[in-house]
Amino acid sequence: MINKSAVKYIQSLQHKKFRDEHGAFIAEGPKVVTEFLEQNIFECECIYSNAEGFKNLPFKIKKEYEPKIVEVADFELQKLSALSTANNLLAIFKKRSIINNINISQKLTLFLDDIQDPGNLGTIIRTADWFGVETIFCSNATADCYNPKVVQSTMASLGRVNILYGDIIEELHKRNNIKKYAAVLEGKDITNCEKIKEGILIIGNESKGISGAVLKLIDEKITIPKIGEAESLNAAVATGIILYELTK
Amino acid sequence: MINKSAVKYIQSLQHKKFRDEHGAFIAEGPKVVTEFLEQNIFECECIYSNAEGFKNLPFKIKKEYEPKIVEVADFELQKLSALSTANNLLAIFKKRSIINNINISQKLTLFLDDIQDPGNLGTIIRTADWFGVETIFCSNATADCYNPKVVQSTMASLGRVNILYGDIIEELHKRNNIKKYAAVLEGKDITNCEKIKEGILIIGNESKGISGAVLKLIDEKITIPKIGEAESLNAAVATGIILYELTK
Repeated sequence: MINKSAVKYIQSLQHKKFRDEHGAFIAEGPKVVTEFLEQNIFECECIYSNAEGFKNLPFKIKKEYEPKIVEVADFELQKLSALSTANNLLAIFKKRSIINNINISQKLTLFLDDIQDPGNLGTIIRTADWFGVETIFCSNATADCYNPKVVQSTMASLGRVNILYGDIIEELHKRNNIKKYAAVLEGKDITNCEKIKEGILIIGNESKGISGAVLKLIDEKITIPKIGEAESLNAAVATGIILYELTK
Repeated sequence: MINKSAVKYIQSLQHKKFRDEHGAFIAEGPKVVTEFLEQNIFECECIYSNAEGFKNLPFKIKKEYEPKIVEVADFELQKLSALSTANNLLAIFKKRSIINNINISQKLTLFLDDIQDPGNLGTIIRTADWFGVETIFCSNATADCYNPKVVQSTMASLGRVNILYGDIIEELHKRNNIKKYAAVLEGKDITNCEKIKEGILIIGNESKGISGAVLKLIDEKITIPKIGEAESLNAAVATGIILYELTK
């Protein structure tokens, strides 16, 4: 059983405003919840599960988190869920505290200039984690990384990559000793680029690309060579190809 | 104005069963509709537009397609649309007739083994078009390429790439003289692969990967090297990276 105020609180976390206010977010489904619990990066507030979901949790997790597990009925889970068909369990986690002044020297770091689609953001975070990128800096207009869709598609990568938000222009100015690369449609062919040990790679908005103000701060424009006719590549696919080439 | 039976017909096209039955699909929004009309690959049945949408169509298109343009009110467009907020116009196109026995010798061809997410399929089609892949063969359980979400995310690439559906095992058997590569988590590092002039690249399901029966028909397993810790890469991102490496 779950009381009305808890339902209201959890439903509110589907909106960024309340995630920011409460410093918490929702993760849905046994896979992502188990990963977060095992990773122990996000502090768990509470787990809501039906009998089936409880059965699927690993024994160690059940033992450790039992006091935080609330058994709920299917119709209650459906009320809490942002999905059209609720999973067997969901959990509320505390957002990570923001770490300022992360050291990005001697590293390849990703800067996102207004990536708007949560699915794309989630895929970019996972891709960054695959290629060992430790930090992603997001402009304020980039999708929220605690959006339920992002949480679902990043899985445990959300806990492994540092994700910061702020004024992208200000942040780029602060890093004036680090070389800045922009992924654009007409630039230097990335097949001719050397492996980058230190640098900032900027990926622009899905339809508008990189904003004019950001482009002024760029040291090198880079491009993925086109063989066919598509007008553009998806932002997450482009990020993957460039990270692959620049880290190999 | 639009009559009830037309509304019912268009709404039915949101489902694969009726798209197959009528051999038609919906494209929403001035950008994708204009691209399809200019490309002239799909035969247009009808265009439904409000005054704003009509204004946004290029003069040449308006002139050529005027008899097929039906002016509708906003509330009518909302009824026809699969989107939560309808665009200013949408159009019904005839599906392309299926071309069998496409020649894939001397080419790099993509085979999809149960890609289920329409967003991923759309991104894969666009990526294939970028890298000059002419044909994509989809297993029967792969998402429908005329699903509204796929149409929205592929744009004109949907008209440029040949997309076939069928029994993937049977199709692979037919192509026994062409080398088959499978993207897997443990295989030959793609950075060591040479450019491929002729071959079949197989991409597996988002969570299950490539099925056992398909794996038995593979000549070479290939892998994208991992530097960080993510469990896997998104299917479309993996496709992009492999096509980039194998075509450069």
